[in-house]
Amino acid sequence: MKNTIIIHPLTPKLFEPFGDVIDTNNSDSFLINKGNCTRHHSISDVIIEDDAGKPIISIFSATPYSLPYTLTLVERHPLGSQAFIPMHDNPFLVIVCEDKNGIPQTPHAFITKPRQGINLKPNTWHGVLTPLSKHDVLKPLNKSSDFLVIDRSDTNDTQANNLEEYTFPQPYIIQTT
Amino acid sequence: MKNTIIIHPLTPKLFEPFGDVIDTNNSDSFLINKGNCTRHHSISDVIIEDDAGKPIISIFSATPYSLPYTLTLVERHPLGSQAFIPMHDNPFLVIVCEDKNGIPQTPHAFITKPRQGINLKPNTWHGVLTPLSKHDVLKPLNKSSDFLVIDRSDTNDTQANNLEEYTFPQPYIIQTT
Repeated sequence: MKNTIIIHPLTPKLFEPFGDVIDTNNSDSFLINKGNCTRHHSISDVIIEDDAGKPIISIFSATPYSLPYTLTLVERHPLGSQAFIPMHDNPFLVIVCEDKNGIPQTPHAFITKPRQGINLKPNTWHGVLTPLSKHDVLKPLNKSSDFLVIDRSDTNDTQANNLEEYTFPQPYIIQTT
Repeated sequence: MKNTIIIHPLTPKLFEPFGDVIDTNNSDSFLINKGNCTRHHSISDVIIEDDAGKPIISIFSATPYSLPYTLTLVERHPLGSQAFIPMHDNPFLVIVCEDKNGIPQTPHAFITKPRQGINLKPNTWHGVLTPLSKHDVLKPLNKSSDFLVIDRSDTNDTQANNLEEYTFPQPYIIQTT
């Protein structure tokens, strides 16, 4: 089907145009604390593009989705990176698109391994947070699925425009095979 | 014993002088993504004090410790906040000290609830990362315990001095009762 997108395993190489994969295999590492701790160092930068922004830590509690997933909308944040790191062992679905003249192109869909997170580069088209339901993953989820999120907020009353949305003329069906 | 420190449960109020507790109960929240996601918003700020610094995302894999824990050393980072968020459901031990004229005072020891993290304010004396062994917590740990860390790095070849250490003249014994 023309509008079917197949999900692939997330790898740093495939994801590189869109951001960083956050896991212990994806950076230099060295010992600290008298050898009792390995620092997997600087896996990704938190990027804030403007002086009116600051980096903040939030938690997103999201309802799990089922596959196949119908994708109608993507969004992007021009002024900052956005990182999602699962606070549990379940994989989640990552959807990203290249941009061409302000229009998101055909989506790419990835599934994470347990304990993998991502950090999206500023201005990267992406789907909303999509944890997967217990039918699609190894372990049952609670009714909501928590992710640590590191992104940009305004420093004061200024409300910079850091959200752009795009609705596809025809939905995409995201599935495993 | 003079040098015995009793561990207390971590609460935002007790921890306020030292930083923020990162969990879903400790911020404003609102619905996003058409009601499918609760954003527990801006639980804590990532703070970088100098122009030569940038916020980065790392993972620390630390060997679990046992209780009672013998505390000999604390450290602080003058130029940035440092957040530790467990990537598992086990609690960990948090040790912090007030400062007086550059000298850390009597330590405070806290134990987290599962899925609680912390963000230390810049220049806050703290113990090294201390996950607890399977003897002290509900669930067995793997041989190392992973934490997401958000802290400061230098932006380029400049190496700012962002680490200060202090060894106590006499160790403290940190225990539950």
